[in-house]
Amino acid sequence: MDKVLGIDIGGTSIKAGMFSTEGQLEAAAKIPTGEIVSEADFALVTEGLKKLLEDNGATVADVVGVGLDVPGPVDDEGKVGMLANIELDPDGLQAALKRTFSRANLAFVNDANAAALGELWQGTAKDASSFVLVAIGTGVGGGVVTDGKIVSGAFGAGGEIGHITVNREETASCGCGRQGCLEQYASASGIVRVYKQECKARGVEPVKLDGPTDTLSIFNACRAGDEAAQAAISTMCDYLGYALAQISVIMDPQMYLIGGGVAGGFKLFAEELRAAFRKYCLAPSVSTRILPASLGNDAAMYGSAFQAMQG
Amino acid sequence: MDKVLGIDIGGTSIKAGMFSTEGQLEAAAKIPTGEIVSEADFALVTEGLKKLLEDNGATVADVVGVGLDVPGPVDDEGKVGMLANIELDPDGLQAALKRTFSRANLAFVNDANAAALGELWQGTAKDASSFVLVAIGTGVGGGVVTDGKIVSGAFGAGGEIGHITVNREETASCGCGRQGCLEQYASASGIVRVYKQECKARGVEPVKLDGPTDTLSIFNACRAGDEAAQAAISTMCDYLGYALAQISVIMDPQMYLIGGGVAGGFKLFAEELRAAFRKYCLAPSVSTRILPASLGNDAAMYGSAFQAMQG
Repeated sequence: MDKVLGIDIGGTSIKAGMFSTEGQLEAAAKIPTGEIVSEADFALVTEGLKKLLEDNGATVADVVGVGLDVPGPVDDEGKVGMLANIELDPDGLQAALKRTFSRANLAFVNDANAAALGELWQGTAKDASSFVLVAIGTGVGGGVVTDGKIVSGAFGAGGEIGHITVNREETASCGCGRQGCLEQYASASGIVRVYKQECKARGVEPVKLDGPTDTLSIFNACRAGDEAAQAAISTMCDYLGYALAQISVIMDPQMYLIGGGVAGGFKLFAEELRAAFRKYCLAPSVSTRILPASLGNDAAMYGSAFQAMQG
Repeated sequence: MDKVLGIDIGGTSIKAGMFSTEGQLEAAAKIPTGEIVSEADFALVTEGLKKLLEDNGATVADVVGVGLDVPGPVDDEGKVGMLANIELDPDGLQAALKRTFSRANLAFVNDANAAALGELWQGTAKDASSFVLVAIGTGVGGGVVTDGKIVSGAFGAGGEIGHITVNREETASCGCGRQGCLEQYASASGIVRVYKQECKARGVEPVKLDGPTDTLSIFNACRAGDEAAQAAISTMCDYLGYALAQISVIMDPQMYLIGGGVAGGFKLFAEELRAAFRKYCLAPSVSTRILPASLGNDAAMYGSAFQAMQG
């Protein structure tokens, strides 16, 4: 039986899924890795994948596609750009995989784009022809799908929606070097930053936070009536709704999906976000849906497998 | 020989082109019309098209596609939305065309999208996989192409780039009812409006303008050293460069094309526009090209024909 592997590459391990070509996740494994730059590193990956297959009644000969997502730019041609956060030699890994899985189509895809493709294949966006996934984690990533395909961009910057400028008056710099990016207000770190500012402005102590991206504690504080937490969430909703309205006048998707870690608080902020979008959008797009993503941390693994089947 | 008709529908006439399937414009005719809502009106159109064909050695039986562009929204399914500026019954016209051109595939397309498709087929964007046409006339329209296809949008609002918000501090309203849209500064009427403001602020008389969209006189004034004209053009370049930078973090196209009437001044403002884009864009997109469109007023006619061949 034909199988497809979807591989989510992280800094300290890879997460690999074995899928049927219909999109059923049949087995998954976490393979500890460090940097992936030498033949020995590549062998660790290929041996781990072989074991995943063999443990689950399949072989390398069954594999028709291997998709890998990376935390960095991949252009429209599938070429991997500069990877700032992981040590990976994509060409070397690709060659090693090609030797092991001779039948398989190989494909790299950006991680946020992979998550969007996963939602398209087996998640909330199944059967949608166009949508944008907003992946809210430490930063804000995005995956833009039109006509059933991901928009990677000519320079790999497609879906970099965390860098939509939402506040031209901002003086603090974003990680990208520009000012006023969506990510500065609507990412986990952005929400924490704004929350602390709101506490300071009110002369109150912030609730105890478990690190610089602990939005869970802020969401809980909001539920308990913390005004600074409410203000930070309102800021997030306002800027995010504004940014989505900008996307709609450009590509006018059928729906927006909110994914990533912060999506755990979706119910708390959904109505405020939808109201902000309606306030800022152009009239024809007013009924665009804003929904939670459904595949959670597995979305990128699904989407990588899906991408490998696109030939 | 197979022929394709591209039809540009205006308020008082239609402009029809007879194309080879390879994209050669072989003949064109202007057919005077008024509203196009009755069988008699539809017959005026079909008879005019028949005459165009017969005058040029072709017949209705040669026609494999008829594409029509309209000044209003057309969604991803090809359905025409509300048309504010012309009186047209698209369903009735489509039925009449279908009876006359029984072999032909019929397609409606938004006028700015049609212009983009024209540039893709036979203009500056030939062989580009992704680009955005910025059509600067009375308003600012746009046509977004990814993976060789137009992005019409789920609600027909794809490419409405004149309504990207570029100035959240603006108090004057755009025609869309929102404030701070690109169109308020970068359309012909916007350039005239800003020019008059700049003159007033300087206490100088504006040059004589031939109506509310006469950018030609402003461009000429700028060339002659008029500071208010220079300031209006700088405002246009700054906001347009900023808006294109927002598009790039979403779709990251290969290139931008500047079309529409204002594009006649492209050489005057090209370098200032490119510098503004580079100032605002995310690093990976910095070498995105900004070029003039090449088909002028015929672009939409070309693009309508092209759309009809997409099946």
